[in-house]
Amino acid sequence: MYHPETTPAKAGAATVTPHETFRYHHVEQQILAMIESGRFAAGDRLPSLRSLCSSMGVSLATVNHAYMELERKGIIEARPRSGYFVRKPGVPLPLPVTEQSTPEIGEENRTNLIQMVLEAVGNKNLISFGCVTPDPALLPGKALARIMQDVTRLSTYDSLSYEVIQGNPELRRQIAWRGQELGLAVQSEDVLITVGTMEALHITLRALTHPGDSVVIQSPTYFCLVQLLENLGLRAIEVPSSPEHGISPAALHEAITKFDVAACILSPNFNNPDGSLMPDEAKREIVDMLARRGVPLVEDDVAGDVHFGPSRPTPLKSFDRKDNVTLCSSFSKTIAPGYRCGWMLPGKIMRKALEIKATTNVCCASPTQMVVAEFLRQGLYERHLKRLRVATERQMQTIQHHLATYFPEGTGVTRPKGGGFLWVSLPEKVDSVQLFKEAKSQGILISPGPIFTTRDQFRNYIRLSCCGVWHERMEHGLKVLGTLAGELA
Amino acid sequence: MYHPETTPAKAGAATVTPHETFRYHHVEQQILAMIESGRFAAGDRLPSLRSLCSSMGVSLATVNHAYMELERKGIIEARPRSGYFVRKPGVPLPLPVTEQSTPEIGEENRTNLIQMVLEAVGNKNLISFGCVTPDPALLPGKALARIMQDVTRLSTYDSLSYEVIQGNPELRRQIAWRGQELGLAVQSEDVLITVGTMEALHITLRALTHPGDSVVIQSPTYFCLVQLLENLGLRAIEVPSSPEHGISPAALHEAITKFDVAACILSPNFNNPDGSLMPDEAKREIVDMLARRGVPLVEDDVAGDVHFGPSRPTPLKSFDRKDNVTLCSSFSKTIAPGYRCGWMLPGKIMRKALEIKATTNVCCASPTQMVVAEFLRQGLYERHLKRLRVATERQMQTIQHHLATYFPEGTGVTRPKGGGFLWVSLPEKVDSVQLFKEAKSQGILISPGPIFTTRDQFRNYIRLSCCGVWHERMEHGLKVLGTLAGELA
Repeated sequence: MYHPETTPAKAGAATVTPHETFRYHHVEQQILAMIESGRFAAGDRLPSLRSLCSSMGVSLATVNHAYMELERKGIIEARPRSGYFVRKPGVPLPLPVTEQSTPEIGEENRTNLIQMVLEAVGNKNLISFGCVTPDPALLPGKALARIMQDVTRLSTYDSLSYEVIQGNPELRRQIAWRGQELGLAVQSEDVLITVGTMEALHITLRALTHPGDSVVIQSPTYFCLVQLLENLGLRAIEVPSSPEHGISPAALHEAITKFDVAACILSPNFNNPDGSLMPDEAKREIVDMLARRGVPLVEDDVAGDVHFGPSRPTPLKSFDRKDNVTLCSSFSKTIAPGYRCGWMLPGKIMRKALEIKATTNVCCASPTQMVVAEFLRQGLYERHLKRLRVATERQMQTIQHHLATYFPEGTGVTRPKGGGFLWVSLPEKVDSVQLFKEAKSQGILISPGPIFTTRDQFRNYIRLSCCGVWHERMEHGLKVLGTLAGELA
Repeated sequence: MYHPETTPAKAGAATVTPHETFRYHHVEQQILAMIESGRFAAGDRLPSLRSLCSSMGVSLATVNHAYMELERKGIIEARPRSGYFVRKPGVPLPLPVTEQSTPEIGEENRTNLIQMVLEAVGNKNLISFGCVTPDPALLPGKALARIMQDVTRLSTYDSLSYEVIQGNPELRRQIAWRGQELGLAVQSEDVLITVGTMEALHITLRALTHPGDSVVIQSPTYFCLVQLLENLGLRAIEVPSSPEHGISPAALHEAITKFDVAACILSPNFNNPDGSLMPDEAKREIVDMLARRGVPLVEDDVAGDVHFGPSRPTPLKSFDRKDNVTLCSSFSKTIAPGYRCGWMLPGKIMRKALEIKATTNVCCASPTQMVVAEFLRQGLYERHLKRLRVATERQMQTIQHHLATYFPEGTGVTRPKGGGFLWVSLPEKVDSVQLFKEAKSQGILISPGPIFTTRDQFRNYIRLSCCGVWHERMEHGLKVLGTLAGELA
């Protein structure tokens, strides 16, 4: 059976079976809900272990484990001979308000800012809420290392050689099978392997657009996408995204009517940064509308596999009957960012996409493709995802709790149903770029709102990554952030 | 000590020590030279083992080994109780004539042709003289597998995580050290890691040019570069390259005087496909000339490490005093194509290059970067290169010999001092595209001349890759190619 790495940060969970993990997590969530509902305020004594055991119908060990976890996260505290007490108030923050943006494109050194955020990619010395990179402790490192050993020993020659440009056939087969489970009519020959989702988006935009073209994006949107558009000389038409439902078909309709648009890029499932999830009805309407208008739809579905609800949200591509949607995704947020293993379903632009792939970098690295293919083939992915989803949701709840404790009044935060990041609105006066700089000088990384747009908006927003493993430095980081935000407010 | 893989194809060499390898190779070369000089014609009996032992001052085993190798390659044959005989005439072919091109740009479905050649990348069922991909048997597969195991086990977290955008620091340090040995004033912070040389060229051109710009290239040049220019909407200004000296400073001067040129891309060391090596004096003159004119110089030095002469040819960058040269290279032709480990020295365009890298694919795969870094750090690269150079030179000589045997009169072939490919001029009437198609239908892959240019030229040229390990199917392949060429002539 596969076990993820154990680290000092999650040592408390080291001896627990997977089944047990889910049980104490459930108990932990219920206690947290009681605190957040206001039933227990700061300083209140929590129910004894024994009384919770009987009321929840779980073992003493499970309740004990949940209490220890909450204590480790700084949410409750143990007092000798007295039991557990709520450490801090836990009134949840309101949702952020969807901002009305000014139509002017603000320059504001966005490129510089993005560069500063990106410089921290791979920097292990920062307390990072900046980049959406799963903590390696949550990734299946042991299984991957074992498979890598088999691959490089048993298929040495293949691991050294160029892969076919389209990508490892077994990996494409596995991706196609997963796609079929989501209702996509996809075969291995429809898949193109890319260096992460970013390359999939890069190839798609180069195939569909020319410099000077206009492209619809969600607002806010992933900052690397903003930078990609700039790099390719494309103009962004921003359609407002609400943290709850993403963009509305009506707003999109207005944009494509008003502007001559070469493509539309949407992230329907847990849009980065606002975490919005588009309802299926809106997905269908948007897919049909764009097909009728002949506007190609580019779907970024990189976060879709990390859902907290029971079922995997549907990709836009599932509603595509006219081969008008190019689906882009990767295993960077789930299996291993460093493997650079992305993929796309180019549909009718396959030929052009292959040409661009060949002249951008010929093909992807062979060993990492082979390992991911084998990881999927052995059926390890779903099992791994189950744990990753639980861990991400817990991390998000923990951060939300501490935001309520440490951040100034007037702060709002999203409640995403998946993904791995929170979109936080600070009191209006707070300049998030200023906050970003001051936090960085103290070794804490966040992503400031203005980099998620080409316009002058989201100045008081920040994005916080929640795909780490909780440790005490993080509470310190959030406390410092909250204090700084309070000073700037 | 490191030993490369042994395979059925090179089983004869399996029990030989490295020192011994070089000795019998030397004897083999001398016998081949005697045959090619005409001293021994087809059917002639070669000197006895004993007489060669004493005349060359080597052991009986060494001469025996050399004879067995030449027999395996179909150049000589053993007759029972009689000794070794020359199987085929071996008069070497003349050099190709540098063609005068017509200035019109021929369309001719070049893109389709390139696609057909590239489709074969990674296809193991063809007898491939098509792609310049070292045979995995010549690559340090065992050492890499061993290091990969250490890396994924001992540095699991690093191997899973994003690398910094610029690339693995240890790998950059190793590349900088190698650069310093070649006289470059380079530090690790000057290096950017890329997905092969192709990505380095892609990033450089995107940083230096805009669609519609003109770019000077050598003629003939690597076909993926031709396709890259087309993809980026750039116009190619072709300056003729001679198989001996590459392009001349005078011809380049004329081109940059006549046209408004945004950049100049040269491959001074074993230009693909003509294998030309630019003399140092011309290198210096060209670097100075372009710096004076303010035309950025892009150097593709991917083949420079595979030299047959005693010293590594100098990169153009060594003569660069004005930070006007961007050097692009990789380990794809030496360590492992499938590791997609390239690099560049962007110089003053570093910032822009990082921006493009971030929006093309964020960063390269971590495990492969870590393994190549460690391979270099352990000092295994130079030792490996020594063997690779010997093997490539031998393969080239063997192919040259068989060309002389099987190809029609009027065929010419280059004598490169490194690289791993031959540029073959066929009799004028031979349509190499036709030859390519007929050969492909028989499972043999070559690269037809017209894909190495944007003009209507090299119709009777083909490029043959020589970075394989000799096996009998190859002789069959060359025989079929020669017969087809004879029929088309």
